[in-house]
Amino acid sequence: MLRFLTAGESHGKSLTAILEGMPAGLRIDKKYINNELKRRQQGIGRGKRMSIEQDEADIIAGLKNNISLGSPIALLVKNKDTSIESLPPVFCPRPGHADLAGLLKYGFKDGRNVLERASARETAARVAVGAVCKILLSEFKISVSSKVISIASAEVIEEMEEKVREAQVAKDTVGGIFKVVVDNVPAGLGSYVQYDRRLDASLAQAVISIPGVKGLEFGLGFGYASSFGSEVHDPIIYSKSKGYGRTSNNAGGIEGGVTNGQEIVIQAVMKPIATLLNPLASVDIRNKKVARGSVERSDICAVESAAVVAEAVVAFALAQALLEKFGSDSLLDIKESFKRYLKRIS
Amino acid sequence: MLRFLTAGESHGKSLTAILEGMPAGLRIDKKYINNELKRRQQGIGRGKRMSIEQDEADIIAGLKNNISLGSPIALLVKNKDTSIESLPPVFCPRPGHADLAGLLKYGFKDGRNVLERASARETAARVAVGAVCKILLSEFKISVSSKVISIASAEVIEEMEEKVREAQVAKDTVGGIFKVVVDNVPAGLGSYVQYDRRLDASLAQAVISIPGVKGLEFGLGFGYASSFGSEVHDPIIYSKSKGYGRTSNNAGGIEGGVTNGQEIVIQAVMKPIATLLNPLASVDIRNKKVARGSVERSDICAVESAAVVAEAVVAFALAQALLEKFGSDSLLDIKESFKRYLKRIS
Amino acid sequence: MLRFLTAGESHGKSLTAILEGMPAGLRIDKKYINNELKRRQQGIGRGKRMSIEQDEADIIAGLKNNISLGSPIALLVKNKDTSIESLPPVFCPRPGHADLAGLLKYGFKDGRNVLERASARETAARVAVGAVCKILLSEFKISVSSKVISIASAEVIEEMEEKVREAQVAKDTVGGIFKVVVDNVPAGLGSYVQYDRRLDASLAQAVISIPGVKGLEFGLGFGYASSFGSEVHDPIIYSKSKGYGRTSNNAGGIEGGVTNGQEIVIQAVMKPIATLLNPLASVDIRNKKVARGSVERSDICAVESAAVVAEAVVAFALAQALLEKFGSDSLLDIKESFKRYLKRIS
Amino acid sequence: MLRFLTAGESHGKSLTAILEGMPAGLRIDKKYINNELKRRQQGIGRGKRMSIEQDEADIIAGLKNNISLGSPIALLVKNKDTSIESLPPVFCPRPGHADLAGLLKYGFKDGRNVLERASARETAARVAVGAVCKILLSEFKISVSSKVISIASAEVIEEMEEKVREAQVAKDTVGGIFKVVVDNVPAGLGSYVQYDRRLDASLAQAVISIPGVKGLEFGLGFGYASSFGSEVHDPIIYSKSKGYGRTSNNAGGIEGGVTNGQEIVIQAVMKPIATLLNPLASVDIRNKKVARGSVERSDICAVESAAVVAEAVVAFALAQALLEKFGSDSLLDIKESFKRYLKRIS
Repeated sequence: MLRFLTAGESHGKSLTAILEGMPAGLRIDKKYINNELKRRQQGIGRGKRMSIEQDEADIIAGLKNNISLGSPIALLVKNKDTSIESLPPVFCPRPGHADLAGLLKYGFKDGRNVLERASARETAARVAVGAVCKILLSEFKISVSSKVISIASAEVIEEMEEKVREAQVAKDTVGGIFKVVVDNVPAGLGSYVQYDRRLDASLAQAVISIPGVKGLEFGLGFGYASSFGSEVHDPIIYSKSKGYGRTSNNAGGIEGGVTNGQEIVIQAVMKPIATLLNPLASVDIRNKKVARGSVERSDICAVESAAVVAEAVVAFALAQALLEKFGSDSLLDIKESFKRYLKRIS
Repeated sequence: MLRFLTAGESHGKSLTAILEGMPAGLRIDKKYINNELKRRQQGIGRGKRMSIEQDEADIIAGLKNNISLGSPIALLVKNKDTSIESLPPVFCPRPGHADLAGLLKYGFKDGRNVLERASARETAARVAVGAVCKILLSEFKISVSSKVISIASAEVIEEMEEKVREAQVAKDTVGGIFKVVVDNVPAGLGSYVQYDRRLDASLAQAVISIPGVKGLEFGLGFGYASSFGSEVHDPIIYSKSKGYGRTSNNAGGIEGGVTNGQEIVIQAVMKPIATLLNPLASVDIRNKKVARGSVERSDICAVESAAVVAEAVVAFALAQALLEKFGSDSLLDIKESFKRYLKRIS
Repeated sequence: MLRFLTAGESHGKSLTAILEGMPAGLRIDKKYINNELKRRQQGIGRGKRMSIEQDEADIIAGLKNNISLGSPIALLVKNKDTSIESLPPVFCPRPGHADLAGLLKYGFKDGRNVLERASARETAARVAVGAVCKILLSEFKISVSSKVISIASAEVIEEMEEKVREAQVAKDTVGGIFKVVVDNVPAGLGSYVQYDRRLDASLAQAVISIPGVKGLEFGLGFGYASSFGSEVHDPIIYSKSKGYGRTSNNAGGIEGGVTNGQEIVIQAVMKPIATLLNPLASVDIRNKKVARGSVERSDICAVESAAVVAEAVVAFALAQALLEKFGSDSLLDIKESFKRYLKRIS
Repeated sequence: MLRFLTAGESHGKSLTAILEGMPAGLRIDKKYINNELKRRQQGIGRGKRMSIEQDEADIIAGLKNNISLGSPIALLVKNKDTSIESLPPVFCPRPGHADLAGLLKYGFKDGRNVLERASARETAARVAVGAVCKILLSEFKISVSSKVISIASAEVIEEMEEKVREAQVAKDTVGGIFKVVVDNVPAGLGSYVQYDRRLDASLAQAVISIPGVKGLEFGLGFGYASSFGSEVHDPIIYSKSKGYGRTSNNAGGIEGGVTNGQEIVIQAVMKPIATLLNPLASVDIRNKKVARGSVERSDICAVESAAVVAEAVVAFALAQALLEKFGSDSLLDIKESFKRYLKRIS
C-alpha cells in the first residue's frame, strides 16, 4: 500500500518525506519536482520567506540513475533559515492557528514548539511527494491540475490582486476558493464496499488536511441541496468509440465512492491566513492577561499555493487507489494490467 | 486503536459490524442503540422499506451483563427482507449511484451485485457502531447531535415537507443540508503533526463516506472565502472560571487539525436520492441501447437520516481520537487520565 | 488491502468474523469451510467441548449464490453453550494463561471477563476466515497443509497417543511441534523494501498470534546456528522446463523477506495447554492467599488443532501478499495478472 | 499510534528514518543514539565496511534544544560510500539473499537494484529509531538488552572467535543465536482481544523482519514441546512488597499475548551471512548458465549486530504498546498515567 510520512519544522534543518510503495521502473525527473515546489511558492499574496527559500528537493533514497527501485523514496527539502533554536518564544497564541490547542495538548510553555510543525511550510514535503505521484499517474495519462476560483470573493485576476493589496494595506489577510481537476481517470478507482475504501472520502481527508482548508465539495457540491434529482444526476450514454459516458458531470467524477470515468472535480475553501500583522485579541499564556496574537513572518494570501498542495495530496490518493487496484512492484506489470482493464471495460 | 468494519447486503441475511478497541467497563444500553437505529429510519421523505424493517441491533459479542469486556463488540442488524438471491437482475445502471462504476470495476453482469452493498442500508451498521461510541463519549460528557438545515432550499419544516410532497408527485427526489454539532469536547484532540492525525481530516473522511454526501464544511466554511482574516478568526479570551475561550466560533471548533475547546460544527450537503421512480436516461448494459435507469424501492428524501448517520461517524472519529490521547483498556483509567488532563489545561 | 477482524466470547452467542478485501467472482464452498472447522475440532487430546460444539459457519454477508461480491464476507459460528452470563466467576488465575495479566490490564474483578475472549475458541473464527483464503489461493494452485511433528517429544502416532493418555491419567497436559507447508507459491510475494512488508515477518506475526504458540522457525530454522554458510544456503539452478530452482530448501521458501519459488516451510511449537485438571499454584485475587488455578473445561493436547489454525493464518497472510502484488477487485483480472507474471519470470 | 518508515540504499546518499508518534518532552541524547549505532557496527566477524562507515545519526526534525516536540523525528545516517550509480551490475544472484526473488519480483535486469535495499545496512536506520524508543522506555525504567548465546554452536567467547577465524580462512560464514531481554516491563502491555494486538505477535514480526533471522522463541520456546504442563507453566505467587510474581519464567514474560510482569525473554537464530567469498553455485541471469554467486563486501558473522538490531525493534514494539495503553502527546501526562496504573495493579 502506498503511504508516506513527512517530518520537519519550519525553521529546522530540513523537511523530510518518505514515500513507500512506489513501483520500480519509474523515471523521476527532479526538475519536475522542483518546478512543483516552485509553483507552491508562487502566487499573489505570498510573503517574504518565499524569496528566501526557493525550495529544492534532494532525493536521497529510492532511485538509481533517476529510475525508481521499488524501495522507499526519501526526499529532503532543506531550509535556508534554520534558526529554530534561537527564535524568540511565543506566548500569545494566534487566533485561527493551532497555537493554543497545541500548547494545551502537549503541555508546552512556548508556542513556538507548536507553530514550527503546525506551519504550512510542511506542505512543501507533501508537494514533493505529490510530484512523484503525479509522475506515476502521468504514465497512465492521468493528470491533476488546479485553478484559483476566487480570492476574497473576487473572481477575476485583477480584482483578486486588488483584494490582496487592500488586505496588505490593512495589515490583514484573505482566503478564497480553488478547484482541483483530475483528467482521464478510469472508472473503477475506490470502492463502496467499506467506508474507508471510498475514494471521495480519501480525497476529502487529503484536501481537508491541508492547513487552512475549511470545506470541500465534489462536482455540484452544495448546489445539490437546491435541486431535484432529475435535474442533477448525470444521464448515462454509450457510444462505440468512447464507451460509456455522461451528458453532464455534476457528480464530479465520483459516484458511490468510485470514479465513474468523468473528470474528478473538487472545490475547496481556504480561510484567510491566521497570522495578521495587525494581530487579533489573544491572551498571554504566562499571566493570562489580554494581549495581541504573536506575529510571524507570513503571507497575505496563499490560495494559489494551497491549490498546488491540493494537487499533490489528490495525486497521492489517486496513486494509492491505482496501485491498490492494479497491483504493485513493477511499473511495466502495472501498466499491462491497466491496459487490459481499460480494454475490458471499454 | 479504535477501528470497525461492517458487512452486509441490502437484502442479505443481516448487517454485521465489529467494533474493535472499546475499553472495558462501559455499560451499554441496548435501547439507546435501537433508538438511534430508529432515528435513522425516520424523517420526512423516507420510503416504504422503513416500515418493513424497524431495525434492532443484537449485540452478539463483547459484553457480559451489558458491560463491555474490552473485547471486540459485534453487532447484528437482521434484515427482514432477505431476498437477495431471488431479486431480479439489474441491467440499467442508475445515474447518481455506484451501479455503472461497480459493474465495470468488479466485472459483473448484474448491477444487483453492486447495489446490494452500495445501498445506504449499510449505514444502519454504522449507526449501531456510532451509538456505542456515543455511549463512550457520554462518559466524558461529550455529546453529538444533528439538525436538518434545509431540504431543496427550504429552511422551515412546513416548506421542507412541501418540497418532499412536490418531489413525490413528480416521482422525483430531493437533497439538502444538515449540521452536526459536538458539544463539550476538550481542546487537544487530533494533531497537526502529520496529515492523517488531523481531526478535521478524519471527520471529513467520515462524513464524506456517507452515501450521497457531496460536500462538507467546518464552522464558517465556504463563508471564509469572502472575508478578511481580522473579521473571522476567533479572538482568544480567558476567564478564571472557564479558562480559555473565544468570542466567536467561526473555526467550528478545530484549528490546525486540533480541537480548540469550542463546539465542533460541521455542515454537509446530501444530493437528491439517485433512485427515481421516473428514471433518468441510462444504457442497457446487455445491448448498450438507450434505456431508463432501474427502479428500486427507495426514498424521496433521506437528509434527516444522513444527519443521524453523520452523528454516528463523527462519534466514532471522536472516540478514536479520545482513546488515542487518553489511553485504552479500562474506562476508569481513561476517565482518570481525562480528568487530570482537564485539570492541567484549565 | 485484505484484512479481518474477529469477535466473540467462548460462551457468548457466537463467534463472528468480517473478512474485507476479497475479490469478486470467487465461488465459496461452504462445505469446505465447515470441513476446516471440523478439522480444527479433531485430533488426539481434544476435550469434551469438541463433541458439544461441532462448529458450522454461516456466511451472512458477501455472497450471492455462493459467489463472492467483492464486499466484506461475514462469517458466524454459533456457540451451542452460550452461558457466559451464568458461569461462575474466576478468582484464581491459571498460570500459563492470560488470566492474571488480563485482570490487571483491564481492571476486572472476575477472571471470566478475560478467559472468555482469551480462550482459543476464538481460533474457530480464524479458521473460517482462513478457509475462504485457502479457496482463493486454490484458484492460483497454491495450497497450504500442516502436519504434527511431535507431541511431548514423541514423533510417531502411537507414541503421541500414549503421551496424551499418560497426561490424561496424570491430569496433566502436553504440547508439541507442528509444521505448515505452502506448495506452489510463486517467487516474489512479500518484499525487502520495508520491515513490515517482509512476508516472513507477517507469517511470524500470524503464527505466533495463535494461542499457545511460543516459537517458530523457517526451513532449517535454529539448525542454521550450527552450520557454515557454504553448507546451508540453497544453490541456484536453472532448467528450461522449470525455470529457476534450488538443489535444497533450507531457507524454507523465503529469502530476504520474499518468496523464492520453493515451498514455504514453517515449524512452530505449542506449549502444553494451560488449564490443568490438577491445577498449579496460584493466588486468590480476592484475598491474595495461596490457591490452585481455576479449572475450565479444556483439552489435554491441541497441537493438531493449532496446526489447522496455523494453516488458516498462513493462508490469510499469503492471500494478502498475493492481492497486494496482483491487484484486487475481480478474480478474473487478478488471475490474468498472475498468469502474465508467471510467464514473465519463467 | 507510534510508527516508522526507513529509506535508503546501501551505497546511496543516506539512510533516513521518520519516527512518528513520540510524545513531546522527551530529552534525546544524541550520544546515546550514536553509541547504539556503534554497537551495531561492532562484534566479532564484522567486515571492512564497518571501519569505513562509523555511523552517526543526524536528527533533522522533531527536536528543539534536544527535547522532542511531539512532531515526527527524522534521523539521517549518511553513507560515506555513495557509489551506488557507479558500482558494477550483479548478474549472479547469491543463494541465501533476496537477489533472485527481487530480480523476478521487480523485473530488474541488474541484481544491484535489489541488494542495495535488501542489504542489512538498512538496519542502521532501525537502530537509530530503536535508540529513541529505548530513551522513551528508560523514562519508565524499562530496559532492553541482548547477548550472543552461540556462534556456529560455540557458546564461549574464545570458541566463537575461533569459529569465525575458521570460517574466514575457509572464505565461509557463520550464524548463531542471540537473546533479547526486556527488564522491568509492567503487566498488561499487548492484548488477547484481537490477533494483531498480541504483543508476542508484534515482537515476532519485529524480530523476524531483521535480515537473516530465521526463527525465534519466547522463554522456554521449543523446549515446551517436550514437557508436561505441570512442569512448565509459571506458578503465581503474591507478596505484599512485590505484588504478584512467579516462581519461574518459562513463558518469557508473555501469556496470552500480554506481558505478565516478568522479564520478556526472546531467543532468535541468525543464519550465516549469505555473501561468501568462496561463492555458491548460481546462475548467470543473462544467459542462464551455471555461475558462482556474486561477491559483495561483507561480514563473516553478524550475530552480535543482529542482537543490537533486535534490541532496537523490540524497543519500538514495546514503546508502541506502552503509548497505546497509556496515551500519547505529553511525556509528563503519560508518566502520570503509568504511575497510577502501577499503583492500581500493585
